[in-house]
Amino acid sequence: MSETTCGKIKRHCQPFTYAFGLTHMKSALMSMVTEYETPKIITIHSYSIALTCRFVQLVIVFYAFAYLMWYKRGYQDRDPSLISSVTLKVTGIGRFDKNNTITLDNADFIIPPQENNALFIMTNFIRTDQQRKRCAEGFDIRDATCINDTYCQALGPYPPKSNGRWTGKCRLPEGRCELEGWCPVENDNVKPEPIMGSLNFTIFVKNFVEFTRFGIARTNIFHDSIAITQCHYHPVHDRLCPVFRVGDLLNIVEPDSDERQKMLISGGVIRIKVDWMCNLDLGNEKCKPTYSFGRLDSRSRDEQFSFGFNFRYASHWKVKKRSHRTLTKAFGLRLIVTVNGEAGRFDFLVLTLNIGSMIGVLGLATFICDIVALYFCKQGSIYRKQKFQTVKLAPTTSVSTIQKP
Amino acid sequence: MSETTCGKIKRHCQPFTYAFGLTHMKSALMSMVTEYETPKIITIHSYSIALTCRFVQLVIVFYAFAYLMWYKRGYQDRDPSLISSVTLKVTGIGRFDKNNTITLDNADFIIPPQENNALFIMTNFIRTDQQRKRCAEGFDIRDATCINDTYCQALGPYPPKSNGRWTGKCRLPEGRCELEGWCPVENDNVKPEPIMGSLNFTIFVKNFVEFTRFGIARTNIFHDSIAITQCHYHPVHDRLCPVFRVGDLLNIVEPDSDERQKMLISGGVIRIKVDWMCNLDLGNEKCKPTYSFGRLDSRSRDEQFSFGFNFRYASHWKVKKRSHRTLTKAFGLRLIVTVNGEAGRFDFLVLTLNIGSMIGVLGLATFICDIVALYFCKQGSIYRKQKFQTVKLAPTTSVSTIQKP
Amino acid sequence: MSETTCGKIKRHCQPFTYAFGLTHMKSALMSMVTEYETPKIITIHSYSIALTCRFVQLVIVFYAFAYLMWYKRGYQDRDPSLISSVTLKVTGIGRFDKNNTITLDNADFIIPPQENNALFIMTNFIRTDQQRKRCAEGFDIRDATCINDTYCQALGPYPPKSNGRWTGKCRLPEGRCELEGWCPVENDNVKPEPIMGSLNFTIFVKNFVEFTRFGIARTNIFHDSIAITQCHYHPVHDRLCPVFRVGDLLNIVEPDSDERQKMLISGGVIRIKVDWMCNLDLGNEKCKPTYSFGRLDSRSRDEQFSFGFNFRYASHWKVKKRSHRTLTKAFGLRLIVTVNGEAGRFDFLVLTLNIGSMIGVLGLATFICDIVALYFCKQGSIYRKQKFQTVKLAPTTSVSTIQKP
Repeated sequence: MSETTCGKIKRHCQPFTYAFGLTHMKSALMSMVTEYETPKIITIHSYSIALTCRFVQLVIVFYAFAYLMWYKRGYQDRDPSLISSVTLKVTGIGRFDKNNTITLDNADFIIPPQENNALFIMTNFIRTDQQRKRCAEGFDIRDATCINDTYCQALGPYPPKSNGRWTGKCRLPEGRCELEGWCPVENDNVKPEPIMGSLNFTIFVKNFVEFTRFGIARTNIFHDSIAITQCHYHPVHDRLCPVFRVGDLLNIVEPDSDERQKMLISGGVIRIKVDWMCNLDLGNEKCKPTYSFGRLDSRSRDEQFSFGFNFRYASHWKVKKRSHRTLTKAFGLRLIVTVNGEAGRFDFLVLTLNIGSMIGVLGLATFICDIVALYFCKQGSIYRKQKFQTVKLAPTTSVSTIQKP
Repeated sequence: MSETTCGKIKRHCQPFTYAFGLTHMKSALMSMVTEYETPKIITIHSYSIALTCRFVQLVIVFYAFAYLMWYKRGYQDRDPSLISSVTLKVTGIGRFDKNNTITLDNADFIIPPQENNALFIMTNFIRTDQQRKRCAEGFDIRDATCINDTYCQALGPYPPKSNGRWTGKCRLPEGRCELEGWCPVENDNVKPEPIMGSLNFTIFVKNFVEFTRFGIARTNIFHDSIAITQCHYHPVHDRLCPVFRVGDLLNIVEPDSDERQKMLISGGVIRIKVDWMCNLDLGNEKCKPTYSFGRLDSRSRDEQFSFGFNFRYASHWKVKKRSHRTLTKAFGLRLIVTVNGEAGRFDFLVLTLNIGSMIGVLGLATFICDIVALYFCKQGSIYRKQKFQTVKLAPTTSVSTIQKP
Repeated sequence: MSETTCGKIKRHCQPFTYAFGLTHMKSALMSMVTEYETPKIITIHSYSIALTCRFVQLVIVFYAFAYLMWYKRGYQDRDPSLISSVTLKVTGIGRFDKNNTITLDNADFIIPPQENNALFIMTNFIRTDQQRKRCAEGFDIRDATCINDTYCQALGPYPPKSNGRWTGKCRLPEGRCELEGWCPVENDNVKPEPIMGSLNFTIFVKNFVEFTRFGIARTNIFHDSIAITQCHYHPVHDRLCPVFRVGDLLNIVEPDSDERQKMLISGGVIRIKVDWMCNLDLGNEKCKPTYSFGRLDSRSRDEQFSFGFNFRYASHWKVKKRSHRTLTKAFGLRLIVTVNGEAGRFDFLVLTLNIGSMIGVLGLATFICDIVALYFCKQGSIYRKQKFQTVKLAPTTSVSTIQKP
């Protein structure tokens, strides 16, 4: 019994024993250093097939080397993830005329004073001095119109969009429900004229980028210390100056002057995009940013809902233990700086992988040509006979019958 | 001598002279357009080998085309780096009951009023009116308990975690060291009840994304102007509404109602993730975001250290040249909006490179099958004789001895 | 006529009719399962060619598997886009001596109180209590020196860099033009000594990252709750502690102590880079961050223009309906936290594509060897005769003339 099993194993292992046998291994190693193997090639003399194939191959080679390798820079390793830090500084002075002229400097119109990758420049505002007490609800709350206390009580202490807790009393002289909270209520029905001179504010964008994969760090300052204090960005004449006039930005992002005025009054969102598309093979000095601008909020004609950009902030203080605040509804330009970039540098790994893929594709060309030549040609059968050399084995007798063409 | 050197060079150059010779080049060019080359193939009649090979090839082809090409969309160029800008707007009104009811609007509970990709909603606070003077150290500083001045002097002017400069005096009635700084010291031992109604605040997230490689820009507004003022995000019924109720967010990120209450009292960090997974081949309109939510801070049971989220801010003013401030220790929900996305679009380059790789892998199949057929088969030696046609050259005599199978 | 057209079509379609004919399809399918095809190989016995080729192949295989697969981890799918959220907390107490000692806590020196991925620590400041009235222009505006009203009027209401609207009057005692705006004008010519103790402030950086492609989330807290309150980051001894002393940070980013002092006086920009380079095949626990630091602003000796980092902010209040503000020009350290990362995990797709490319490259080796052997070898013509089997067809008579080597 055990012998038979052993024999079975022996028989099954035979190919392995043979393949990894000492004699065989030795001869295989021997032949490895003495023999060079190359596929046997059938050469078919035919103008039509040859020309077709050469054309297919040429197209692939041209595509591979001219387009992928050269134009698309297939020899470069790309790093699309860059590290960026942006600091923004605004200079300018504004004037606001409502009742009396108010002069505002950048501590007044930049809220909050520092942000990461963003900046808000207030171009218009509604300011209300408030105290914690009781007063009539604002006119923009339609439900607040009342004739008696019962009506106000029915709506509960917090009706939607209320400006405070409703006491349930109807203030008869005004005919409006009473609230308890910050008084008087802000009246934002009439928007004042925007801050004059905000168009002349300048924004200095200091950007530092790093392509970590390549260890390349760049800043967006290419002017010397005197030039940078005087230059202004211009899409044609000075494309590298990182100082942007607010008026120029508005002109670029919004061609309609009426809309621009509306943006100053009601606010808007502007994107400053800094693109670092760097071909590091040309030298790191050639790695310079391009600036582009866009308006992110909807135009007033497209959207009636939530037009512009505004938010409220307050400064608080106390006088004789009583809370006071100045509520400011700030309209203005929100600038969002987005930094985007991709650096490419020659990389042997990427080149190798891409060449490998190309050769694979060239194999596809041969495959296509073969099918055409062998199956869709008049002389296909003759080629087939030449190309394929059949080896037949009678599986039971283990004697091979070799058919030669 | 010179002749010999010349002869040497001639001999060495001979192959090159031949290879690049005019006659040879002409004939090579001639044959290029008239001759088509294709590898000679040995066809082995064997059910077992053929079936094995077909199976291996089928698996590879199926894997390549069904899985990689179709499921993993290997025909698409992917752009994982998107540019995003987020603006956040909160509406709601809160009530805070400690001694007397205080009504808070969004100018009070959003600190700072604008942030980039983030928002803080204050849900609880401890407010202390302070002046610059001298007072007793806070009760949370254990070392401040004293019996005489010597003890306080020994600890130096700035003991760890002190709230100001220690004067070195021991305030005897209280039995605590005296400090000079903002007085009185904040007492944050007892946390008040959180702002009622903060659960009903709604957050409107306006997101603008751009896939720069494809030049596709999208916003997350899919409702019309009326619907968007009324809709609320719901994970099942309204997955595209960008208006989030704070209470709903808390329910999603924290199943435990006790923990939710603790988050309102002590604060927490919530992430709103906006995912833009876009298959641009289906049309740009199909490119819509999905929202997901997560809690980033540790749960109270997991962490005793630095539980919740809080920070201090102050509003400053002066009365009769004396500095006053209202220090607020703000507890609340910090919402961090992260935008993530990847767009894919059919790209001939990527398709080509991937097909090239696939053909390379198919070559691997032939390679594996060959090894099996030639070395691990009974009839291996017969196949080998057919496959390999040996060319032997006597290297010294340069006369070739051709062995044919 | 119609018969001829039909015949034409028939003749043109013949190859297709044949190729897709039932009998042919059947036999093709039959041969597919019974026949195994493998390229016929010519084996050339030549030490020199064989050794050259083996060497080329070995180099490629070694490069492919040792370098690309092992060192460059070509078997891994990489996710370079990670989602990160950072919260920062500063502890410490500062002292500012100008006229009288002022104690500052973190509600005073962190402006704004919360930022996303960034933090500003005020280390020095110039504070000016201002009111809206009329006063003399500041001394830093050179044009403001006047002898009569005509001079001031000539410059217009808003000369460059003015601090308010010029009234056109010349204030004779001071000999400076009068402005209307916030008065008195800030005098930032003399910078005070920086806030003592700011070097001892500690910054706690809490970072949460997620590799979305792999669904892996990690935080940068590896110490237990007690250790984390006591540890300080050290580049050698404690590289995982997320608590950074400001003094240590400055020592790392700026070796020159004189420059460090200038950074405290005039401000500076420091980057904290958190790198998550994760090989997820080693286990998620091994995925830990490394911190690195850099100075982003220019050193004082390199740049005279806009040295340091400063901005202005103001706190507003009203006394008896009159606006007051405290303008603070804040100098300090702006810390920008950038989180960067890449995770890699074994992926069959990536491995397959890379192996495919490798095999393509191996094909290149054969191609190169063939050219060398066939065209640059003495016995090249003999090899060529063996390798290429020519099939010639007389295209007109359709009778093949087969030339055998």
